[in-house]
Amino acid sequence: MRACLRKLGEFGLIERIKRGGRSRGRNILLGIGDDAAAFRLSPGHVGSATTDTLVEGTHFDPRYTGFHDLGWKAMAANLSDIAAMGGRPLMALVSLTLTGRQSVKDVDDLYRGMRALAGRFAVDIAGGDIVRGRELSVTITVIGECRKGNLGLRSGARPGDAVLVTGTLGGSRAGLQLINSKLITKNAKLLIKHLRPEPRVREALALAGSFRLHGMIDISDGLASELHHLARESEVGIAIDRGALPVSPEALAVAGKLGQDPAGYCLYGGEDYELLFTLPRRDAIKAKALMRKLGTQCTVIGQASAGRGVRLTGRNGRSVSLAGSGYRHF
Amino acid sequence: MRACLRKLGEFGLIERIKRGGRSRGRNILLGIGDDAAAFRLSPGHVGSATTDTLVEGTHFDPRYTGFHDLGWKAMAANLSDIAAMGGRPLMALVSLTLTGRQSVKDVDDLYRGMRALAGRFAVDIAGGDIVRGRELSVTITVIGECRKGNLGLRSGARPGDAVLVTGTLGGSRAGLQLINSKLITKNAKLLIKHLRPEPRVREALALAGSFRLHGMIDISDGLASELHHLARESEVGIAIDRGALPVSPEALAVAGKLGQDPAGYCLYGGEDYELLFTLPRRDAIKAKALMRKLGTQCTVIGQASAGRGVRLTGRNGRSVSLAGSGYRHF
Repeated sequence: MRACLRKLGEFGLIERIKRGGRSRGRNILLGIGDDAAAFRLSPGHVGSATTDTLVEGTHFDPRYTGFHDLGWKAMAANLSDIAAMGGRPLMALVSLTLTGRQSVKDVDDLYRGMRALAGRFAVDIAGGDIVRGRELSVTITVIGECRKGNLGLRSGARPGDAVLVTGTLGGSRAGLQLINSKLITKNAKLLIKHLRPEPRVREALALAGSFRLHGMIDISDGLASELHHLARESEVGIAIDRGALPVSPEALAVAGKLGQDPAGYCLYGGEDYELLFTLPRRDAIKAKALMRKLGTQCTVIGQASAGRGVRLTGRNGRSVSLAGSGYRHF
Repeated sequence: MRACLRKLGEFGLIERIKRGGRSRGRNILLGIGDDAAAFRLSPGHVGSATTDTLVEGTHFDPRYTGFHDLGWKAMAANLSDIAAMGGRPLMALVSLTLTGRQSVKDVDDLYRGMRALAGRFAVDIAGGDIVRGRELSVTITVIGECRKGNLGLRSGARPGDAVLVTGTLGGSRAGLQLINSKLITKNAKLLIKHLRPEPRVREALALAGSFRLHGMIDISDGLASELHHLARESEVGIAIDRGALPVSPEALAVAGKLGQDPAGYCLYGGEDYELLFTLPRRDAIKAKALMRKLGTQCTVIGQASAGRGVRLTGRNGRSVSLAGSGYRHF
């Protein structure tokens, strides 16, 4: 089985990947098979592009992350970045480093995982590279488009804005805690939340189509870290109401069982891939209603002011400076 | 020195990279620092995108490839792919896997190497990712634009077309042979040719601006391999005149010294990053003159026909089927 990859060969593998895809993206002019892919942008739009790498051992543990999940997760991280600009993803390029220990089925599963998620948003894998190395890694680049003049930027928050977040927080961390504490079999739903995050592409498009976007960022490293990015880049202060944090039921359950603080899961957990954004208060109310129509929870968790830094207000009304730690590679 | 990277930290490193760049690209709306980069396309153009990964040990030997050279080479491979579509490169995203053994100076040198080449074509590094792994690797994605309706495709060759190639061939392989045979000090120019290939961006733009492009591909894996891609995708036969191959003087010298066939360097050497393209014979003459104006050699090496496969005609007039081997990862 393992030998099959060698037997199939590099070009055989590329041919296989090419056949596995369907050209559905309306803006893709040329997919896999030439020196570069070609695409067009819709009228009134500008392009956006992002790239993310997942490395075995650093970003995922092969004992808990199968190839399908890995593909899904790598795609999710990139789609979420495009969403966080208020954009529509158009196509993906995939650069894959294989060690030679993977089977053809492993590679098939990886692409199936990427396509299972990308396909929901009519995103094609339009190109890439496959190389050999001593360590498995996946680098995905996603190219998208944003309405001209309406990008959701980290620098877009304004004093007086309400600060909102989609979905619930801490679920991904709860899944990780379950894994780490060997309670895996007890709550499969949480694991799925950790392994298969849902990027908020539809939500971002709805927001960009309805409002002049202010500050916007996705929560990849943890709410606290992203709040600090937003505050620093926008040169505003942000005050968060601890009681307003939309803690996921799973985070509540797991944190309770392990005797930990569920708010910690929300603030420092990471990989929730929810949208953190700011809008004038009047728009914020409309945005909540708009998200409800999409079946997506949306919560006002605080507000921006003319100050600096990020503060967290507890139940007792006391406010403390919020540490900004997220995951650091170095 | 080595500890500095840890001291600088991930965000410090990103800040350093951000400061090191100059925003010159006229089509870049948003560079490093947000969830995604933003760009626009020129009127009458479509987008093109390509990605390439270089892994330590597989694609480069750290004993002979310094960080500046590595950056240059990784950028060259991607720019060459955009050129091979007849496109203008606009911006690059860089995903870097560091092991923690690299110093801040190493990373600075890497980015300097990438920028030294990219800057020639007003290409900015507009985003990316930096992660930790057990193996050094660089993945670059370049986004470019092509004139609408005038892409240089692998499938574009037509029976009767002349087959042309820019520059000379075999120089990169000659450099590699020098390295492998420990003759390094004797011919530094060759080494540079191997380590610092020159992607044919200006040449490709001139061709796209003057002609309706037919077949086009860049020579990354070796002429023989690329000829087979061209023939197969275009469903034509290609006949190459062995005597017409523009063997680089360096390839002649090194092959002579080592008692090898210089034509082998041209056909199977790889990494020359020249353009291989086809045009109707009338256009081919004009194309040669156009390339001469840019100071770039351009040679008709054969022609396409209604047949299939690739044949090589020797001095004796006998033609043999040309094996298509290029570098294979698996």
